Amino acid sequence: MADRHIPDIADIREAANRIAVHAVRTPLLSGTILDELTGARVFVKCEPLQRTGSFKFRGAYNALALLGREGRANGVVAVSSGNHAQGVAEAARLFGTAATIVMPADAPAIKRQRTERSGARIVPYDRATEDREAIAAGIVAGTGAAHIHPFDDPAVIAGQGTAGLEIADELDRLGAVPDRLFIPCGGGGLSAGVGLALRDRFPDIGLTLVEPEGFDDYRRSLRVGERLSNSRFSGSLLDALLAPSPGAIGFAINRTLGAHSVTVSDAEALRAVAIAFRELKLSVEPGGAAGLAALLGEDLAGRTVVVVLSGGNIDEAVLARALDSAPQ
Amino acid sequence: MADRHIPDIADIREAANRIAVHAVRTPLLSGTILDELTGARVFVKCEPLQRTGSFKFRGAYNALALLGREGRANGVVAVSSGNHAQGVAEAARLFGTAATIVMPADAPAIKRQRTERSGARIVPYDRATEDREAIAAGIVAGTGAAHIHPFDDPAVIAGQGTAGLEIADELDRLGAVPDRLFIPCGGGGLSAGVGLALRDRFPDIGLTLVEPEGFDDYRRSLRVGERLSNSRFSGSLLDALLAPSPGAIGFAINRTLGAHSVTVSDAEALRAVAIAFRELKLSVEPGGAAGLAALLGEDLAGRTVVVVLSGGNIDEAVLARALDSAPQ
Repeated sequence: MADRHIPDIADIREAANRIAVHAVRTPLLSGTILDELTGARVFVKCEPLQRTGSFKFRGAYNALALLGREGRANGVVAVSSGNHAQGVAEAARLFGTAATIVMPADAPAIKRQRTERSGARIVPYDRATEDREAIAAGIVAGTGAAHIHPFDDPAVIAGQGTAGLEIADELDRLGAVPDRLFIPCGGGGLSAGVGLALRDRFPDIGLTLVEPEGFDDYRRSLRVGERLSNSRFSGSLLDALLAPSPGAIGFAINRTLGAHSVTVSDAEALRAVAIAFRELKLSVEPGGAAGLAALLGEDLAGRTVVVVLSGGNIDEAVLARALDSAPQ
Repeated sequence: MADRHIPDIADIREAANRIAVHAVRTPLLSGTILDELTGARVFVKCEPLQRTGSFKFRGAYNALALLGREGRANGVVAVSSGNHAQGVAEAARLFGTAATIVMPADAPAIKRQRTERSGARIVPYDRATEDREAIAAGIVAGTGAAHIHPFDDPAVIAGQGTAGLEIADELDRLGAVPDRLFIPCGGGGLSAGVGLALRDRFPDIGLTLVEPEGFDDYRRSLRVGERLSNSRFSGSLLDALLAPSPGAIGFAINRTLGAHSVTVSDAEALRAVAIAFRELKLSVEPGGAAGLAALLGEDLAGRTVVVVLSGGNIDEAVLARALDSAPQ
């Protein structure tokens, strides 16, 4: 985070060139059964199909690329419960440098396993009693590794924005003009990057951030114009979206773009997981399905909307619970 | 099946225009983890993301379109355990005509439910004791409905071929030239259509049909040059691929194209289902994963290959079994 500038569309375009060799250009589905369920024209950006199963690889790879050979020489450190961990671990593997991940002990098993598979070292901590930032700072001090923040970093935000660039290019190709974007929101890096890219091409698009019920730091922060924190740090199935408060850069961008935020419950997210699995044949984790959950709860007849499915790393027991809870 | 001509690339192009309004242009994934697992460059055509969850909608819709308003006026009949049933039922719904599906009583529950959801009437039969073709013929005689064969129909084969046209267009765009296609094979309609479309663009591509172990009618038929039957009609988890024998038209095409056939076991298919779910985040049924299962069993280092995932309508208990049987 040496560089605190606010990223713009040029940064996103450069990031797209940087990540092109290793990132999947994920599909934007259209003409799915969601059109009939909603009465809208729904475009679905499929980030579960991204390398490591979520959009996080985009930002991580861009950040490591921008560090340069010297900046990566002593390895990298990240604090993450899962998707950012996997993104950083895989980017580090591709760049041939070491990754250390500070991860809560209660992170989903699939995310821990996959982070280890990319060769990263995991340092577990207790969410309730330990200070993860202090642990990460200690590793940086001891090793000289570079700290890759999950969202409060212009390089990470520009990387996430490449998903928005792909959406905009595909909509242009199809001649479609979107009215609204529904996008999952934790720290706000994804929504900031994708929002920048889409607003650049479609000046009138509305931006709806979707947060877990009880973790509506963005909603409250946007309302008062300053960054507020959540009162809790766990207790939602949408584990991918539990950032303690908006990132400074992402908040500035989302606020400038006029984004607003809505929340979804665990039950609504599970229903969206079941619909994504049964109707779209995609594995989507609860946090990754938050945008879809919000979209399904609104009257969008006649509108053209984009929804980002942001990640697919679901514990299989949670998928079973989602399928059990929703009638076929 | 009034028209018995052998379809060609022009028929496939016309079918593509016909189905464009309602069919999903499914993604061709590249740069996935399959590249690392195989050492090959693997392109993955994702037909689980097609409307109704399998490629069958393509052929069904094209066949109903070609029937014309009068030809559809008395409804349509199909014999199918599932994916063709859903394709025909959904196409009939879109054309505003009635569909009757003759379906084995042991068809997967998800396929029966979804066929009913599209408004079709289901006539169950016992695979062991009843003659499904006679039942269908009786319905045709009684109602004047048109019989839509699952594979032995030029309109159906041309419709399935549109998946191949999409693959060829996307490979052209990327400048990639494929060495080999791996594709699931039951009656051979999909492989015939996709084979035609790919061979038209890539004259040197090899065509590998993939059948269930114990149901290798295509392998034996291609060897002797005439159509042979399977000795059994059930007893495989790859329920989508259990046609009793090659279709006449599809066999002629596959033979002319020089296709060869390999088989995969239930266990190999389940492993491919688990890999598709965990690594690609896609719901793929055992028959739909047959091509992937075969691909994973071969040495393809340095090659460029295309695999078609043909359907995603998996019973959730079967997915659980696949995930349980394969270590994470």
